[in-house]
Amino acid sequence: MGYSDRITGLAGGGAAWDVFFRAQRMAAAGEELTMLTIGEPDIGTAPAILDAMHKAAEAGNTGYASIPGIAHLRETVARRVAARTGVETAPENVMITPGGQPALFATHALALDPGQTGLYLDPFYSTYPGTIRGVGGVPVAVATRAEDGFLPRAADLAAAIAAHDAKSLLINSPNNPTGVVYPEATLAEIAGVVREAGIWLISDEVYDTQIWDGSHVSPRSLPGMAERTLVIGSLSKSHAMTGSRVGWVIGPDEAIAHLGNLAIHTTFGVPGYIQEAAAFALTQGPEFEAELAAPFRRRREAALRLIGAQNILRHAPAQGAMYLLLDIRATGLSGQDFAERLLDAERIAVMPGESFGQAAAGHVRVAMTVADDLFEDALARLIAFAGELAA
Amino acid sequence: MGYSDRITGLAGGGAAWDVFFRAQRMAAAGEELTMLTIGEPDIGTAPAILDAMHKAAEAGNTGYASIPGIAHLRETVARRVAARTGVETAPENVMITPGGQPALFATHALALDPGQTGLYLDPFYSTYPGTIRGVGGVPVAVATRAEDGFLPRAADLAAAIAAHDAKSLLINSPNNPTGVVYPEATLAEIAGVVREAGIWLISDEVYDTQIWDGSHVSPRSLPGMAERTLVIGSLSKSHAMTGSRVGWVIGPDEAIAHLGNLAIHTTFGVPGYIQEAAAFALTQGPEFEAELAAPFRRRREAALRLIGAQNILRHAPAQGAMYLLLDIRATGLSGQDFAERLLDAERIAVMPGESFGQAAAGHVRVAMTVADDLFEDALARLIAFAGELAA
Repeated sequence: MGYSDRITGLAGGGAAWDVFFRAQRMAAAGEELTMLTIGEPDIGTAPAILDAMHKAAEAGNTGYASIPGIAHLRETVARRVAARTGVETAPENVMITPGGQPALFATHALALDPGQTGLYLDPFYSTYPGTIRGVGGVPVAVATRAEDGFLPRAADLAAAIAAHDAKSLLINSPNNPTGVVYPEATLAEIAGVVREAGIWLISDEVYDTQIWDGSHVSPRSLPGMAERTLVIGSLSKSHAMTGSRVGWVIGPDEAIAHLGNLAIHTTFGVPGYIQEAAAFALTQGPEFEAELAAPFRRRREAALRLIGAQNILRHAPAQGAMYLLLDIRATGLSGQDFAERLLDAERIAVMPGESFGQAAAGHVRVAMTVADDLFEDALARLIAFAGELAA
Repeated sequence: MGYSDRITGLAGGGAAWDVFFRAQRMAAAGEELTMLTIGEPDIGTAPAILDAMHKAAEAGNTGYASIPGIAHLRETVARRVAARTGVETAPENVMITPGGQPALFATHALALDPGQTGLYLDPFYSTYPGTIRGVGGVPVAVATRAEDGFLPRAADLAAAIAAHDAKSLLINSPNNPTGVVYPEATLAEIAGVVREAGIWLISDEVYDTQIWDGSHVSPRSLPGMAERTLVIGSLSKSHAMTGSRVGWVIGPDEAIAHLGNLAIHTTFGVPGYIQEAAAFALTQGPEFEAELAAPFRRRREAALRLIGAQNILRHAPAQGAMYLLLDIRATGLSGQDFAERLLDAERIAVMPGESFGQAAAGHVRVAMTVADDLFEDALARLIAFAGELAA
């Protein structure tokens, strides 16, 4: 039988994912590994949130829920976004989605017709190019450079937009995999390029509660940007609700209306009891969110101490998100070879930088998602291993 | 800002939906209406299913769940499908989706590249053409006829496939909105045409537990069809879990692998605790499912008695699903005008046949989704109203 080019061309990250799949198989077979791979918090969803969910379901909220989102949750998200960014935000600017990934898909479906180009930055979260292909678009990466702290150059962006007649630019700050948080000056440059070109800025801000250094600026808050920015949010990381699949898009009301119409054909909405649980979670206050971010903050501080005590490995600016991107080029290995050897020698699984694009070659991404003592021990062994290689 | 042609072209059903939206506004404003519009069962999800869900969540199943579906649920669905259809079905033939609509979207994304034609039958469930447009495809309707009991003619299908070089055909039995259940002979004709053309058959079988007359045959069970049929299932209607968004696609293992890859980019899976609840629901046995179907069976019998006692209205063969399609042409009105006037005169909301395509013009669809006494009273008033119009 025939398959669409779209679905056969989605592809994964190629060989750079082999080490991850091998580690998964080893773990499934019962081997003891320290898994520092994916962005899954090492705690589950808080019992109070699950109780709120169950209460809503028991009360009868089990039928079809409003597809752009229940009024109560849209209002809660609008108030949150307005308070955090200073941008006026109404419920009509909020579309509730089953998580961040469906929001990435929907916003690209809104911006791109088949054959049109969507830009994204390299290194990138692994689904970005496939998401653009999935809507029939053409993904084009704009490389950032380790020596720039992985911040994009405005001239590169402008050139790529012009060369490909791009209709959208996807950015992600705090960034996965680098941990970089874009300063306001960089965002202002990006905004200038996007405004000049008259294209959509799709801003993936799902790590916005994980800021270790500096502060998070949403580009939607910059002059002239609210009308051309689609912000993606999620409770996955901020509230340890990865499995519950709930997030949102913030954008102009006309865009949100279109996304609601699209959702009738793609997702048919988010369970009402999950939406109620999300509204409950979002009103637990900043202390609750700080508590959920605290383990990553502690582990990142411990990591910077360990890395500061040696001179083989360097780290990318580790300002936010639950990852460290380590430059292992002093070992003479690729990120992929380093990760393969580390897995065999130390039973520690990390992601090769190459899993996230060529701009992260010679790096490995370390997820700070295991208990503090295990994490520090694993990182110390990783550093020692790199030291032996470089010796 | 610019929007993709895809998203602006999704469109709804046009003016034929006005009466539905008006009824919704009236109900929201507190007016007393009898709503016989959408396919929402009038009971919620069973407490035991909600308890199974909460137990799974409390036990820690709140992280990212396996994207093609958790092994336990894929096995349960595979066993169910094998038992109900006689077709060998492995877990690798099952993709768990967040409900039937995402399954419709994903299967069309698999079958169609942008610009390619997907066929569907008129009358149709309202999202069908928009779903095909949503993947960048071209929806083409093949009309069925009231005088054929809304069964498709093989020659019409073959002609449409040839004329449009179609890559897929979408069918739905038990059918929404007609209530028709396709007999095996019709399905064998459809299968013959599809095999001859070498295209995909997408078989929406979400009403397969609501059979009032005859029996349900899945076209995947016909010779040579397992390799070219993608079956869509859901717990929405069978287990009163509309809001939980959980269903599946059954297909060849290669197709399911592609759909799993697509889901990484579109949905990122279904909450693990909902998958556990679905597995629990599917093992409650046929008595439980018969109990959930019983109210619709009772109401349909009462309706046929009431309709049999007059000679203005006719009904389409009411063999399955939770709807009656009533032929109101004897009143001289369109389905839309009839529905508008019925809403004003009797405060009863039904769907104009035109909401589901031109082949259902001059009909109205009545959802049997209110309590028996209310339903019988409303239908008696609808019949009396039609009688006055025809007098």
